[in-house]
Amino acid sequence: MSGKAAIVGSGVIGSGWAARFLLNGWDVAVFDPDPDAQRKTAEVLDNARRALPALYNKSLPPEGTLSFHTDLGEALSGASWVQESGPEQLAVKHAIHRDLSRLAPADAVIASSTSGFTPSALASEGARVIAAHPFNPVYLLPLVELVGDGPTCARAAEHLRSVGMFPLIVRKEIDAHVADRLLEAVWREALWLVRDGICTTEELDEAIRMGFGLRWAQMGLFETYRIAGGEAGMRHFLAQFGPALKWPWTRLTDVPELDDALVGLISEQSDAQSGHLSIRALERQRDDNLVAILRALRRSNSGAGKVIATHEATFPEPSPATPPVTVRRQIPQTWADYNGHMNEAAYLGAASEASDRFMALIGCDEAYIAQGGSYFTLESHVQYLAELRVGELITITTQLLSGKGKTLHLFHRLNGPDGETAATIETLLVHVDLRTRRSAPPSERVAALIAETAMAHAALPAPAAAGRGIAVRTSSAGAG
Amino acid sequence: MSGKAAIVGSGVIGSGWAARFLLNGWDVAVFDPDPDAQRKTAEVLDNARRALPALYNKSLPPEGTLSFHTDLGEALSGASWVQESGPEQLAVKHAIHRDLSRLAPADAVIASSTSGFTPSALASEGARVIAAHPFNPVYLLPLVELVGDGPTCARAAEHLRSVGMFPLIVRKEIDAHVADRLLEAVWREALWLVRDGICTTEELDEAIRMGFGLRWAQMGLFETYRIAGGEAGMRHFLAQFGPALKWPWTRLTDVPELDDALVGLISEQSDAQSGHLSIRALERQRDDNLVAILRALRRSNSGAGKVIATHEATFPEPSPATPPVTVRRQIPQTWADYNGHMNEAAYLGAASEASDRFMALIGCDEAYIAQGGSYFTLESHVQYLAELRVGELITITTQLLSGKGKTLHLFHRLNGPDGETAATIETLLVHVDLRTRRSAPPSERVAALIAETAMAHAALPAPAAAGRGIAVRTSSAGAG
Repeated sequence: MSGKAAIVGSGVIGSGWAARFLLNGWDVAVFDPDPDAQRKTAEVLDNARRALPALYNKSLPPEGTLSFHTDLGEALSGASWVQESGPEQLAVKHAIHRDLSRLAPADAVIASSTSGFTPSALASEGARVIAAHPFNPVYLLPLVELVGDGPTCARAAEHLRSVGMFPLIVRKEIDAHVADRLLEAVWREALWLVRDGICTTEELDEAIRMGFGLRWAQMGLFETYRIAGGEAGMRHFLAQFGPALKWPWTRLTDVPELDDALVGLISEQSDAQSGHLSIRALERQRDDNLVAILRALRRSNSGAGKVIATHEATFPEPSPATPPVTVRRQIPQTWADYNGHMNEAAYLGAASEASDRFMALIGCDEAYIAQGGSYFTLESHVQYLAELRVGELITITTQLLSGKGKTLHLFHRLNGPDGETAATIETLLVHVDLRTRRSAPPSERVAALIAETAMAHAALPAPAAAGRGIAVRTSSAGAG
Repeated sequence: MSGKAAIVGSGVIGSGWAARFLLNGWDVAVFDPDPDAQRKTAEVLDNARRALPALYNKSLPPEGTLSFHTDLGEALSGASWVQESGPEQLAVKHAIHRDLSRLAPADAVIASSTSGFTPSALASEGARVIAAHPFNPVYLLPLVELVGDGPTCARAAEHLRSVGMFPLIVRKEIDAHVADRLLEAVWREALWLVRDGICTTEELDEAIRMGFGLRWAQMGLFETYRIAGGEAGMRHFLAQFGPALKWPWTRLTDVPELDDALVGLISEQSDAQSGHLSIRALERQRDDNLVAILRALRRSNSGAGKVIATHEATFPEPSPATPPVTVRRQIPQTWADYNGHMNEAAYLGAASEASDRFMALIGCDEAYIAQGGSYFTLESHVQYLAELRVGELITITTQLLSGKGKTLHLFHRLNGPDGETAATIETLLVHVDLRTRRSAPPSERVAALIAETAMAHAALPAPAAAGRGIAVRTSSAGAG
């Protein structure tokens, strides 16, 4: 499904919509009186082109055509989706929607990005409009709250799913819909906390992203609390924490009565939502997601990911040996694949860590790399000898086969939990100058450390597997 | 730094503390009158052993010794950390802390997991205690709010950092500290929304985890809103959304005055927090984190990750060709390494996707695998010919070298954005029975499709690189 989307108002939200449609193959016509609109849209598009396709393991369809218009009728002509993202002022929205309802094709969905107004308030002067409230950045976050006429919302949901979004149909009109009511409650409480000098904006942000923010990226409020209730379930949780509603735990004190009817309603809905999974299963799901998210954040050295990386830096390295132990770690759930074992690429990921550690041992460490020298891999040959499972402890030892001139020829033995060799990885690297991206000799210190290591490793037997090519043989074991 | 931690009360929170200390090499002594305490703690430990070590690329130190005690003095003997996680009832906590202050070593940190009480309230009968409020699951989430005596909190922070946590020192006492005030505000608003029939618990959870929950895993409230303010900054954002405070956007209506003093305070604190980064830089950081988190969630097919996978399943496959295009995708930021290019393991990751696609083309698809047949990799040989950068479009074509009996011998050519070959990956796979995990012949249909493909590929020239082993040569190009 693709077509033409008319984007009316191209601020951060409108441009995000433009990007979402355009990158999913729709033609996009932008109408915005701001003379700077093209530049601002281009900046958001830059961000979107960098981020949205990166979510997928397949390329997105070819981009549609982007056009800018000063004539509203022209922008709307032939559009099957019209998205208004104007200022959050009712009079302004009324004026815009008068024109949109008049000029848009009769079968077009006309939607407003309003975060606060109900569709009834927007339509009070006869316009046909639903609320389609997205979240910034619109090109990445899936949520869109849909409020208004049922059949139109159902049609709108199909369109939104086809551009990778998650439409949430809100069946009852209410100011600020659902998500922004929660956000507004947090916002008001946050203002009190900063105003009263309890914490700074930075401390408050840490209180979110180091704790419950991580939970909410993968489970919401009720499913998380269902787990907290443990084996005793949601009723138990409510009974336990209900009394706090009477306490001054927030400055926001107009509190609903947690009577039997409300406890029953929540328990029933929670059962319908999550009752098909045991608490143990929910815990595992939560933990697997948290591990995946935290590992993702440690890659970007951000928030909780930075805490982990900083902590890990305090771990002692294994004592030196010949050959050295270059990796000793547990297999994370993010390394498993559909065959129920460590994925073939993860073997090379572990070997890549081993090469990094070996490089550090010969003086090619972080500081050296920052100076512009590094090693790039030219070839790798993996032999998979045994399956490995999530949670198992693996170690890698690294043997230097040769290290003359610019090249470094390594042989990694990856050992499973019982010490058996589960894979061998032979790797050829070349020293490079990171400025020219071409091969170059290593520093004298690195060359000397390589020579010293080569002396020590000269006594080790040459691995039988090294130097061999792949050949089809009769085989019985499987791994990878 | 390690030592002995005494865990007083071993429910979900107490057991989480026990796991956090134990897996970081501390000895842990548990005191809990519940006869079921050992079983419950063991269950939490099971979860923790599966999850916490998976965060790290190095193995954690050897676990400490775990013991259970019915004598409080014995549990406390020699402890440098005492963590009370009893019921959230002030009288109960008073009774416990009377004993803890009397029996614990004089230099031990005595901390309460209380989510609501101030240390002053806990200490009102003379106990020495600080609040150290963690978040479930304690073994994974880094946040601990520390409240109370300054020097004790500073000492506690050191201990907590040494077990990988993020201590947030809250300088002013307040009921429910910081994070739980925000949570309580959301909770109260959520109760209203469910009670008033606006949404179900499930819909509310989706409204969180499909939208702002993803933002909060990596940035908090204020930094996110700073970006929303755009180039005009935090003051602009506050001016724009300030008026909503007067509107009935939540049922929680005791709202602070957003006067010049508060606007100034927030703007200054936000500048101190994030002012060293431009809005563009913050946007990139946010987007890179969101991409990483969303890709993490698509692995677990959870929440927003499931939306992406479902969307991707609607993308058309490339039209059949000889050899077939088995991968066409953009390089995500999660595949880059410190050398500023696609990491060596990611080449094999892409080739692994290509093998999966080739398998599907010969009938070894998801349904077939669910029946118990699959291919495992025996060997892979990667030759890196050119560097690749984040955002570049890559394609892989896959040539069948041979496919007789149980083995499948493939040759992947990975092409960069200009069509040049950036890597070749030669792979040998073996068909297996997933129940026995041993090699077994493929189904007749798969064998027939392989034979058909082999016929079509017979006309293709044999790749020069196939079958070769790694040999040290004089080289000038670098990649991987």
